[in-house]
Amino acid sequence: MSEPKPRYGRIVLAPEDFLPTRGLSRRAFFDLLAAGGAAAVSAAVAGRAQADDANLPPHVPPWSKRLGAPVNAAYGQPSPYERNIIRREDPGLTPTREASVVFTPLQNLFGIITPSGLHFERDHGGRPDINPYEHRLMIHGLVRQPKIYTVEDILRFPSVSRIHFIECGANSAMEVRNVSVPTVQYTHGMLGCSEFTGVLLSTLLDDVGYDKKRARFILAEGADAASLTRTIPIEAALDDAMVVYGQNGEMLRPENGYPLRLLVPGFQGISNVKWLRRLKVGDQPFNTREETLHYSDLMPDGKTRQYTWIQEAKSVITSPSGGQQLLDRGYYQITGLAWSGRGKIRRVDVSTDGGRNWHPARLQDPILSKALTRFRFDWHWDGSPALLQSRCIDETGYVQPTVTQWRAVRGTRSIYHYNAIQTWKVDPDGKVSNVQVA
Amino acid sequence: MSEPKPRYGRIVLAPEDFLPTRGLSRRAFFDLLAAGGAAAVSAAVAGRAQADDANLPPHVPPWSKRLGAPVNAAYGQPSPYERNIIRREDPGLTPTREASVVFTPLQNLFGIITPSGLHFERDHGGRPDINPYEHRLMIHGLVRQPKIYTVEDILRFPSVSRIHFIECGANSAMEVRNVSVPTVQYTHGMLGCSEFTGVLLSTLLDDVGYDKKRARFILAEGADAASLTRTIPIEAALDDAMVVYGQNGEMLRPENGYPLRLLVPGFQGISNVKWLRRLKVGDQPFNTREETLHYSDLMPDGKTRQYTWIQEAKSVITSPSGGQQLLDRGYYQITGLAWSGRGKIRRVDVSTDGGRNWHPARLQDPILSKALTRFRFDWHWDGSPALLQSRCIDETGYVQPTVTQWRAVRGTRSIYHYNAIQTWKVDPDGKVSNVQVA
Repeated sequence: MSEPKPRYGRIVLAPEDFLPTRGLSRRAFFDLLAAGGAAAVSAAVAGRAQADDANLPPHVPPWSKRLGAPVNAAYGQPSPYERNIIRREDPGLTPTREASVVFTPLQNLFGIITPSGLHFERDHGGRPDINPYEHRLMIHGLVRQPKIYTVEDILRFPSVSRIHFIECGANSAMEVRNVSVPTVQYTHGMLGCSEFTGVLLSTLLDDVGYDKKRARFILAEGADAASLTRTIPIEAALDDAMVVYGQNGEMLRPENGYPLRLLVPGFQGISNVKWLRRLKVGDQPFNTREETLHYSDLMPDGKTRQYTWIQEAKSVITSPSGGQQLLDRGYYQITGLAWSGRGKIRRVDVSTDGGRNWHPARLQDPILSKALTRFRFDWHWDGSPALLQSRCIDETGYVQPTVTQWRAVRGTRSIYHYNAIQTWKVDPDGKVSNVQVA
Repeated sequence: MSEPKPRYGRIVLAPEDFLPTRGLSRRAFFDLLAAGGAAAVSAAVAGRAQADDANLPPHVPPWSKRLGAPVNAAYGQPSPYERNIIRREDPGLTPTREASVVFTPLQNLFGIITPSGLHFERDHGGRPDINPYEHRLMIHGLVRQPKIYTVEDILRFPSVSRIHFIECGANSAMEVRNVSVPTVQYTHGMLGCSEFTGVLLSTLLDDVGYDKKRARFILAEGADAASLTRTIPIEAALDDAMVVYGQNGEMLRPENGYPLRLLVPGFQGISNVKWLRRLKVGDQPFNTREETLHYSDLMPDGKTRQYTWIQEAKSVITSPSGGQQLLDRGYYQITGLAWSGRGKIRRVDVSTDGGRNWHPARLQDPILSKALTRFRFDWHWDGSPALLQSRCIDETGYVQPTVTQWRAVRGTRSIYHYNAIQTWKVDPDGKVSNVQVA
């Protein structure tokens, strides 16, 4: 993890970024043209059904006056006007572009479903181009009958579909060192939420006849160049873990593990091994390279906490958020996301004064276990400086910690599994920036 | 609507169509190589964490042996191996390609979310290419203060996100004439389900101060070349209708109304006017051209039922479905979709003998109002001929009708709003085809 770099200041949201980014500018109500003038426009427009449309918009745009494009049988794409809404790579965060990360543009998104084309990508040995007809998944170890499955085999098992988040264990890591990266895309964008479809891992473990007495852990291995490996405890494997092939209705995207990935709902991102090729049932943790060097937590006492699987409750305001600009005093909808690796979000509170006063936010249905929950809060900005914060509570009663509370437990020596309350500062000129409030 | 055409027989799912389509072939369990041979493979693979991996897969695929591609900051795309899973146009259904339709490939999809790139498209004057900075929405008529909004204005109102289906009123129309088109993409593919984000129409009607005493209907008009217009009753407008800009987390796709569309949950597709530019509050139905010539139901008595807004409860099995081929006897998961324009799905039953015996299917959570609900049913095919059907019941108690029941009410003279039970016939050789069972 690098030190603060001035280049972050240059990652500004370009003026041509589309409206959700710019969506904080003046609400302009245009006066209607005088009825007489508008009626003249009306008479010139063919195909109007109404004789009394005295108040037509003042001009008929060009796309209403010419035949549009033919229907598109090909795979659809966003409007060209959305071309600046993309995942973004931090060019300095990682030494290579194959072991790197691109971030979900949370500031531009609505609801809880992350569009697959904008879902963050974190790879350790690059993104493999896998032929699904050649791909195999082996399950072996403490099993009665080791088996090798084709993707078609997996598709024939009883399936389930569930909406869950995936968050990288290193999400928000730069906040630990108070780097104050400018936008929520970089502070919290190693986060996505999708409707996943696949086979419960318990179904597959039954199919190979796992050793119910001795099985304690499972090793999952990816088919990428890193042969990425992670240990999964048997309790999670038998609970809600899945071997996934579907994401948001279609097959997984290549960067999200096509054609098969592991999903362990609520676990840190890396546990959800992509391009899954192997599951081995064992009686102890596997202690693989990635589980010691990375994604372990160096605690204040110098000991390393190795198996921090679960992403604890966390929330963030996505709008207004760093890099945006409030142009008017008046109404703003504060909105953001909350999630917990332990279940459902019970409550989200919002503060506009840095945590002195808290107000309950509205939670958008459906509120699903181990999924993103969208919250909203109505705010009238009077032009004063403000410190915007959100704080969530999950169904276990766990309360998202302050920065001070987080540091008291975790210290400053490791950067993983950071879930403290995020603060966006609003200046009197409307500029929104990332600050840390104790 | 055209007569049966032999060309339908040529719309077969190509062999290179990916696995969900082909996912009904033999489940092959490959024997593992002898431990000695596999161990030799293991030793050749760098970076393995385990010394005891005696049972590695028999070969290491090429993508595990070379560095993968760099992370992709650009908007993501499906795997090239999925290139045959697209929306498809029926080349003979409509006289022009601008007033035409492409269909959602339901047979290839999982869960309830329709990927935006595969969502059906139905246009009446082609697909406009709208500059969102130039787009305007006018609300006028029986209002205190007519207003014209920019897209930015709309984005600043309090918003909601909700998962709802959209089904064209002409979906499954060819079944009325027993054309027996071969696949579920063509029988039921004018159907999608998305997480929509926008502003409740009631919020906007309050903003213009609509006349609460006189307002009975609202005219919605699109900015396309057709200036498509539809009448919406005020009850629906004030209930859950929305002016939508977000679909599955991002801005609407151009073919789904970018940058603004109307959403009237549960109403026939055409009521959800795309590229929304105008809403007019009135005291009577507007009887526009599209509301008389199209999407009206010619009943057996010769009268026309004009305002059939709500899509009644309906379901369909998406797998196994027409055009697929069962290659083995044995286990199959029957799965499909159910939905109702009046609320939640309460129950889905499945029959494998043409409706003589019915068995309850499992419904996948979350079960949401006016949204697709995924159902699943375990089936062991013994090689006998089978007639696969699904039948849903919604929370009002409405039961999806049989073909006979539907025809008794609706006759044979109109093709809209068809929601009868669909039958897929399985031949002893495993071929699955579309048949009608009374």
